[in-house]
Amino acid sequence: GESLCVFGTGDMGRSLGQRLLQSGYSVVFGSRRPDSCVPVPRGAQVMSHAAAAQSARIIFICIHREHYGFLQTIAPQLKGKVLVDVSNNLEKDMFPEANASHLQRLVPEATVVKALNTLSAWALQNGPSDSNRQTFVCGDSAEAKQAVSEVCTRLGLLVLDRGSLGASRELEDFPLQLFPQWRLPLGIALGLTAAFFFYLLIRDVIYAYVVDGKDISFRIMVSLANKVFPIVSLVMLALCYLPGVMAALLQLHRGTKYRPFPDWLDRWMLCRKQMGLVALALASLHVLYTLIIPIRYYVRYRIAASTISQVLKNQTTEFSQTSAWRTDSYYSMGILGFGLFVLLGISSLPSVSNSLSWREFSFIQSKLGYLTLFLCTLHAYLYGWDKFLRPTSYKWYMAPGYLLSLVLPSVVLVLKLLLLLPCVDRSLTRIRRGWE
Amino acid sequence: GESLCVFGTGDMGRSLGQRLLQSGYSVVFGSRRPDSCVPVPRGAQVMSHAAAAQSARIIFICIHREHYGFLQTIAPQLKGKVLVDVSNNLEKDMFPEANASHLQRLVPEATVVKALNTLSAWALQNGPSDSNRQTFVCGDSAEAKQAVSEVCTRLGLLVLDRGSLGASRELEDFPLQLFPQWRLPLGIALGLTAAFFFYLLIRDVIYAYVVDGKDISFRIMVSLANKVFPIVSLVMLALCYLPGVMAALLQLHRGTKYRPFPDWLDRWMLCRKQMGLVALALASLHVLYTLIIPIRYYVRYRIAASTISQVLKNQTTEFSQTSAWRTDSYYSMGILGFGLFVLLGISSLPSVSNSLSWREFSFIQSKLGYLTLFLCTLHAYLYGWDKFLRPTSYKWYMAPGYLLSLVLPSVVLVLKLLLLLPCVDRSLTRIRRGWE
Amino acid sequence: GESLCVFGTGDMGRSLGQRLLQSGYSVVFGSRRPDSCVPVPRGAQVMSHAAAAQSARIIFICIHREHYGFLQTIAPQLKGKVLVDVSNNLEKDMFPEANASHLQRLVPEATVVKALNTLSAWALQNGPSDSNRQTFVCGDSAEAKQAVSEVCTRLGLLVLDRGSLGASRELEDFPLQLFPQWRLPLGIALGLTAAFFFYLLIRDVIYAYVVDGKDISFRIMVSLANKVFPIVSLVMLALCYLPGVMAALLQLHRGTKYRPFPDWLDRWMLCRKQMGLVALALASLHVLYTLIIPIRYYVRYRIAASTISQVLKNQTTEFSQTSAWRTDSYYSMGILGFGLFVLLGISSLPSVSNSLSWREFSFIQSKLGYLTLFLCTLHAYLYGWDKFLRPTSYKWYMAPGYLLSLVLPSVVLVLKLLLLLPCVDRSLTRIRRGWE
Ligand SMILES: Cc1cc2nc3c(=O)[nH]c(=O)nc-3n(C[C@H](O)[C@H](O)[C@H](O)COP(=O)(O)OP(=O)(O)OC[C@H]3O[C@@H](n4cnc5c(N)ncnc54)[C@H](O)[C@@H]3O)c2cc1C
Ligand SMILES: Cc1cc2nc3c(=O)[nH]c(=O)nc-3n(C[C@H](O)[C@H](O)[C@H](O)COP(=O)(O)OP(=O)(O)OC[C@H]3O[C@@H](n4cnc5c(N)ncnc54)[C@H](O)[C@@H]3O)c2cc1C
Ligand SMILES: Cc1cc2nc3c(=O)[nH]c(=O)nc-3n(C[C@H](O)[C@H](O)[C@H](O)COP(=O)(O)OP(=O)(O)OC[C@H]3O[C@@H](n4cnc5c(N)ncnc54)[C@H](O)[C@@H]3O)c2cc1C
Ligand SMILES: NC(=O)c1ccc[n+]([C@@H]2O[C@H](COP(=O)([O-])OP(=O)(O)OC[C@H]3O[C@@H](n4cnc5c(N)ncnc54)[C@H](OP(=O)(O)O)[C@@H]3O)[C@@H](O)[C@H]2O)c1
Ligand SMILES: NC(=O)c1ccc[n+]([C@@H]2O[C@H](COP(=O)([O-])OP(=O)(O)OC[C@H]3O[C@@H](n4cnc5c(N)ncnc54)[C@H](OP(=O)(O)O)[C@@H]3O)[C@@H](O)[C@H]2O)c1
Ligand SMILES: NC(=O)c1ccc[n+]([C@@H]2O[C@H](COP(=O)([O-])OP(=O)(O)OC[C@H]3O[C@@H](n4cnc5c(N)ncnc54)[C@H](OP(=O)(O)O)[C@@H]3O)[C@@H](O)[C@H]2O)c1
Ligand SMILES: CCCCCCCCCCCCCCCC(=O)OC[C@H](COP(=O)(O)O)OC(=O)CCCCCCCCCCCCCCC
Ligand SMILES: CCCCCCCCCCCCCCCC(=O)OC[C@H](COP(=O)(O)O)OC(=O)CCCCCCCCCCCCCCC
Ligand SMILES: CCCCCCCCCCCCCCCC(=O)OC[C@H](COP(=O)(O)O)OC(=O)CCCCCCCCCCCCCCC
Ligand code: HEM
Ligand code: HEM
Ligand code: HEM
Repeated sequence: GESLCVFGTGDMGRSLGQRLLQSGYSVVFGSRRPDSCVPVPRGAQVMSHAAAAQSARIIFICIHREHYGFLQTIAPQLKGKVLVDVSNNLEKDMFPEANASHLQRLVPEATVVKALNTLSAWALQNGPSDSNRQTFVCGDSAEAKQAVSEVCTRLGLLVLDRGSLGASRELEDFPLQLFPQWRLPLGIALGLTAAFFFYLLIRDVIYAYVVDGKDISFRIMVSLANKVFPIVSLVMLALCYLPGVMAALLQLHRGTKYRPFPDWLDRWMLCRKQMGLVALALASLHVLYTLIIPIRYYVRYRIAASTISQVLKNQTTEFSQTSAWRTDSYYSMGILGFGLFVLLGISSLPSVSNSLSWREFSFIQSKLGYLTLFLCTLHAYLYGWDKFLRPTSYKWYMAPGYLLSLVLPSVVLVLKLLLLLPCVDRSLTRIRRGWE
Repeated sequence: GESLCVFGTGDMGRSLGQRLLQSGYSVVFGSRRPDSCVPVPRGAQVMSHAAAAQSARIIFICIHREHYGFLQTIAPQLKGKVLVDVSNNLEKDMFPEANASHLQRLVPEATVVKALNTLSAWALQNGPSDSNRQTFVCGDSAEAKQAVSEVCTRLGLLVLDRGSLGASRELEDFPLQLFPQWRLPLGIALGLTAAFFFYLLIRDVIYAYVVDGKDISFRIMVSLANKVFPIVSLVMLALCYLPGVMAALLQLHRGTKYRPFPDWLDRWMLCRKQMGLVALALASLHVLYTLIIPIRYYVRYRIAASTISQVLKNQTTEFSQTSAWRTDSYYSMGILGFGLFVLLGISSLPSVSNSLSWREFSFIQSKLGYLTLFLCTLHAYLYGWDKFLRPTSYKWYMAPGYLLSLVLPSVVLVLKLLLLLPCVDRSLTRIRRGWE
Repeated sequence: GESLCVFGTGDMGRSLGQRLLQSGYSVVFGSRRPDSCVPVPRGAQVMSHAAAAQSARIIFICIHREHYGFLQTIAPQLKGKVLVDVSNNLEKDMFPEANASHLQRLVPEATVVKALNTLSAWALQNGPSDSNRQTFVCGDSAEAKQAVSEVCTRLGLLVLDRGSLGASRELEDFPLQLFPQWRLPLGIALGLTAAFFFYLLIRDVIYAYVVDGKDISFRIMVSLANKVFPIVSLVMLALCYLPGVMAALLQLHRGTKYRPFPDWLDRWMLCRKQMGLVALALASLHVLYTLIIPIRYYVRYRIAASTISQVLKNQTTEFSQTSAWRTDSYYSMGILGFGLFVLLGISSLPSVSNSLSWREFSFIQSKLGYLTLFLCTLHAYLYGWDKFLRPTSYKWYMAPGYLLSLVLPSVVLVLKLLLLLPCVDRSLTRIRRGWE
């Protein structure tokens, strides 16, 4: 096959070389130590950089940017060649110039193309899968880009053109991203958690200390956590479905779908998936915290104490049908809601959502999602029951936590019910199909 | 690159346009409002429909079918062009004619090709992944199909030819499917759940009300649910493995594998995965319902009452080694069975099953699957223990639920054991390798 | 389209034929019973083997190796053809010769190419996905390989060349692999489980029997299991992170990253994923075993007995703030640690890890992984608390299990802390960037 050159026998160089060989190219490595370097893939040759450069028109520079310097010394041999810059940096803005532009400046007679940098050596070796099948390419020479694209396509990659070499900074920033879409949802979760934690700390623990003189600070570890987590989870679940309702109201109000949403709404809609998954994680914690209740020392102690006191006072409490119904019902709602919640989570795994048709996906995410929200809200209502009526629930005029958590979900559910009214639904469908 | 035209600047139009640009085509949009439409991807032009149509041979019609009417007015400009119909409908049989056929009738001088309709605008924008890498194409002109296929291939899609334009109705129905393979399993689960629910309602709750005059209706929420769910789960697990055994027996009986199975057996075999996953969901619910037992009001009340009565009567019950062994054993079997159950579920996630070799997949699904069935069955046997011997278990001559749930699993396990006998196994292998 | 021939109308033959038809080839089947065979995909022809062979240059032999014999009889018709061997065997080393070499020997005038054998008929039919997009090809004629590769590429597969026909044995062994990477981790897990099981059996059960004369053998089922599983899980979690630390120390010691690691370290590093997943499975079992504690007969009996004895002795135990804090804390640490553990598991699902950038993946696996290890270790420390100080904990001089489980995690965490010291960290980064 055609001959290609790879500079550098490190992880990236060897992986790329092996893959090129398997796809039918012949490969020549350029190395500082052609005779003593680590073993290269079978079938490839190793030479000095200058010699290797002669043998091919395309040279993959699999060397860290810091070591590019020596390329100036072999500039004559690189003249007219296509240099493929695959490099990344340790952090953003480490250098004033993008690596590819730096390379171009060092060897102006060669043509630099940026490519392959978003793939890891590991992924290259194991063959392209799902989402690392794509590679971005940029460069100033259309012809050089075309030549590199052809090699990439033969490696099984899908090439996406990103324009001129000026875009290489953007390409170099890709692999440095750290969960950009998770920042907002995690921020919201953190903020809400802190707010509710201090609210409940004051209301439950500090109140008991100040007013009753009792130290129940040990409750922070489990009891308090098991209030904060479910409350934040429920609020975030509601925040997942609120933007959809708001978008619908906005479209109804405007009478058209062809005007873009305000920016904040757009951003909110785009992080609903992450918001939902954070809510799921918090709900899972709530479930685990709930399930260990009966093995807690404090709970066991209290139950024994209550039994003993019943015996000593010789008065047993009456069995309450209402309590039995109510508690069993709220557990049941919680379990069913959590089951659906997990189902939403499973269906958002990339491999599962890819195998669903659009209609199936939105049936689960939208229809079953609202059912989940409804069941979880019902669970919290049944848990609270008539507590909100009792004056003792308002310590220092602070409402019980569950009551606060119910505001947003209730609003979302009521608005959604409004949107489901036949007349409203009909106009919404009209608007969304473009009948104006 | 080559020039392509896209009619409509909606979600689909813009996504497709962007993708085409990235793949190196130049793109011209045709719009009703070339000057005031929403922003199109950078690098594309927007013109009136008539002007845009001139600039390219292939035109993607990214417009809802209801608005196709205006195309008749620009028929002269569309003459000889290839029109790609990407449209879908809101529901099946909304229109008497398939969208693509309708389009062909409207513009008879153009050649219509149906394509891309199974992809969502979203998926197009994010790049093809795993299973939405495929697109179906149909049309009456082989040459036009070829031209469209080439574009699709360059977008990274795998094109599958579905024949003439007559197939477009079928293609338009694809994205409207709503879990066709889940209907039968969900139907069976629902039927079994209803049947066992009423059976146990009569046996447990109504019997207590009629005969003993006690109202224990609160038990419906948790106790009854926690009988119905595991019973149905176990039965459905058995139903997963029954068809495999029946198929083997049929092949043994016929002495050949080259005769197709009866239709019902084929359909049954094809929905085993869904059946198993429904069983897993029900088993998960059983586990959660079981784990909340100790925090139930009713259970706490009963335990306290029993302790108090022991104190008052001054007679403590004896510790029973057998009970300790038996309950611990059945919990242990349940936990291990559930662990394997979850493993079966994980291994049927598309991305996991894709990374397993055929032998590995069937090791987990078949060998470990039978082990799961065995452990769960043993769990139910140990749970029931000698209850089935006691006459009081047969209220109104109705056997306890667990006993009914054990019939099918036991049959499947016995039949499987028969098939594992060396002589039977040998003839089966012979038949399956085609040595007749 | 071009004409291709398929011998055999079995599962593989039909699937392949259908796929070829969809990709635009015309297909002719060769069958023993051209008139009475099972229905073939629409559009294909069925003929006798000899007639079919005439119609195409490439023939896919979708027949089991045992039946290759008849091919000798039609050798004249096969002369000059390319025979594609797709066959696999039931087990390794069933035959002295690879199937493809055997075929070549039978029909020496034809050119044999091995291909497609790692795909299943099922996968072919459903379209290539994620990891079964790849197929390996080997053969002695470059030209024949090229022709077969072109067909495979058009089917949407990525072809990897494996060299001459001599490699076919290796290719035939691929689909027979049974979890090669899981063997070591599962072996270690099994060994550790057995060792700790017997250790704790002697220490807890046999000691009680011999010294106190009490038969508490029923504890094996749950109590003992719930010690062995978490202990082994924690040790294996530590074993996941130990090799990374050792590799770093070795690189620091050597002052370079360009010398390969010793073989055992390499192998250890490559099975960390499997090791971690086994640890996760064991931790999940630990959690389930823990959650059923309160419904165990033995536990309920003991609690009732303790309550009764408190009543009868008329002395209630004091509420201990320390115990409340300690137990709640260790549950909390366990829950948070387990939550992160599950997150590590989710992020190692192929479809999830593929959609993460390298930096994101290693943030979760490395940073959050150490946090998981830390939380789980803390959980065990808090659980043990001051137990290790009490002489009664050393029955027959055997330390309590939890103490043993803490050794390795503590070592790993301390070494990691050392590596995080700024000066050490700096030299390590230098070495890993190749600044020597
Ligand atoms: C556990 C959990 C997991 C979730 N996972 C996802 C998820 O994987 N993807 C997701 O979008 N939401 C996810 N969500 C958020 C939420 O369920 C969905 O956004 C839901 O579709 C909103 O319903 P709606 O009726 O308000 O949507 P509407 O706004 O009424 O309509 C659906 C809207 O959702 C958008 N949408 C649909 N599918 C996708 C998709 N695949 N990618 C991006 N946007 C899409 C479309 O732009 C469309 O406008 C998840 C929520 C939870 C609780
Ligand atoms: C939680 C859970 C998950 C399950 N997930 C799956 C699943 O993902 N796929 C699945 O097939 N079954 C699944 N099942 C059903 C069941 O485990 C399998 O069908 C199992 O292989 C039957 O074993 P057997 O020995 O009876 O099969 P046999 O009939 O003896 O032999 C295996 C048969 O299964 C068919 N088969 C094997 N692999 C697949 C596949 N990938 N797709 C379709 N058919 C196949 C083949 O046609 C073959 O005839 C699942 C069951 C449970 C409980
Ligand atoms: C539940 C669970 C799941 C795990 N899943 C995985 C997993 O999917 N992949 C995995 O590698 N480890 C997995 N592990 C093991 C462990 O978490 C990682 O190996 C972790 O990166 C080690 O951290 P470290 O700082 O010691 O790695 P270091 O050795 O300091 O550096 C990271 C090293 O990990 C290797 N590596 C990184 N990513 C991958 C990858 N995708 N495939 C193969 N090797 C890689 C690189 O060779 C690199 O040398 C898992 C562990 C647990 C407990
Ligand atoms: N590893 C990945 O997953 C990955 C992914 C995408 C991009 N990249 C990029 O690929 C490049 C190489 O990464 P890598 O991980 O392969 O690094 P590496 O393993 O450290 O290899 C770098 C190679 O560069 C050569 N080299 C080192 N110092 C040199 C010097 N002073 N002068 C000349 N050559 C020198 C060495 O080859 P010789 O000994 O043969 O000279 C060495 O093997 C980097 O730019 C990186 O950003 C890597
Ligand atoms: N969205 C998807 O995920 C998806 C997936 C597969 C297939 N499709 C199909 O693609 C087509 C477009 O869907 P879409 O989601 O992009 O819809 P859309 O967002 O509503 O866009 C439709 C576009 O059609 C044009 N249009 C609307 N009314 C028109 C009229 N009366 N006359 C002429 N043009 C009119 C508008 O473009 P101008 O304002 O520029 O004229 C509008 O932007 C549909 O057939 C749909 O079935 C969509
Ligand atoms: N099934 C898979 O998933 C898969 C995957 C990879 C590779 N393979 C390989 O593909 C080959 C076929 O597997 P399969 O599963 O399709 O097997 P199969 O269903 O048993 O079909 C084998 C076909 O071979 C023909 N045949 C049987 N006995 C014969 C004889 N004595 N002489 C001549 N032809 C005979 C029959 O076709 P006619 O009745 O038309 O003559 C039969 O349909 C095997 O080598 C297998 O290893 C299969
Ligand atoms: C006690 C357990 C608590 C923690 C587990 C809860 C699950 C929530 C997890 C969030 C996962 C985030 C992954 C981050 C990686 C990422 O960015 O991933 C990014 C990917 C890809 O995203 P894009 O497609 O948007 O690029 O997103 C995902 O893959 C989503 C993964 C969803 C996983 C849900 C799994 C459900 C399984 C539930 C198990 C429940 C256990 C219950 C125990 C009682
Ligand atoms: C309390 C939780 C109860 C509910 C969760 C149980 C899991 C069972 C879920 C079934 C999932 C169906 C997805 C439907 C989408 C679809 O059609 O999906 C279709 C896809 C693709 O199918 P094809 O390959 O057949 O096209 O199928 C799947 O992806 C199967 C997904 C299997 C998921 C199993 C995950 C196991 C994780 C277990 C978590 C256990 C939590 C335990 C808590 C105690
Ligand atoms: C009670 C439950 C206990 C069992 C479940 C625990 C999960 C651990 C499972 C290990 C899975 C191994 C799959 C083997 C197939 C294989 O080889 O698979 C091979 C694949 C691909 O590997 P390569 O990419 O290395 O080729 O690996 C995987 O897919 C890894 C799958 C990870 C799955 C983690 C899922 C987390 C979900 C957690 C649910 C927790 C439930 C908690 C209940 C309380
Ligand atoms: C297995 C499923 C579930 C069970 C068994 C369960 C159980 C409980 C219990 C016992 C409580 C009372 C806690 C206390 O006494 O402080 C509670 C409260 C609550 N639960 Fe759940 N729950 C489940 C699922 C969910 C889910 C999925 C949500 C949704 C996010 C949720 C939201 C809440 C809320 C908001 C409260 C009130 C918290 C407070 O203010 O105390 N629960 N749940
Ligand atoms: C964590 C794992 C499990 C635990 C702890 C567990 C526990 C229990 C308990 C406590 C009961 C008695 C319920 C009652 O008193 O009504 C029970 C019953 C039962 N379980 Fe499980 N179980 C587990 C997993 C499973 C699984 C995976 C199955 C398989 C489907 C299963 C099937 C059954 C059946 C059929 C019954 C009898 C139901 C009845 O008639 O009451 N269990 N289990
Ligand atoms: C939901 C999370 C968890 C809970 C509720 C939990 C609870 C417990 C309990 C109650 C014990 C005492 C068991 C006994 O009395 O024998 C224990 C012990 C232990 N746990 Fe956990 N745990 C959790 C997660 C974990 C995780 C993720 C690990 C890490 C592998 C772990 C490691 C250990 C170890 C090593 C012991 C000591 C075992 C012994 O020697 O008895 N736990 N845990």
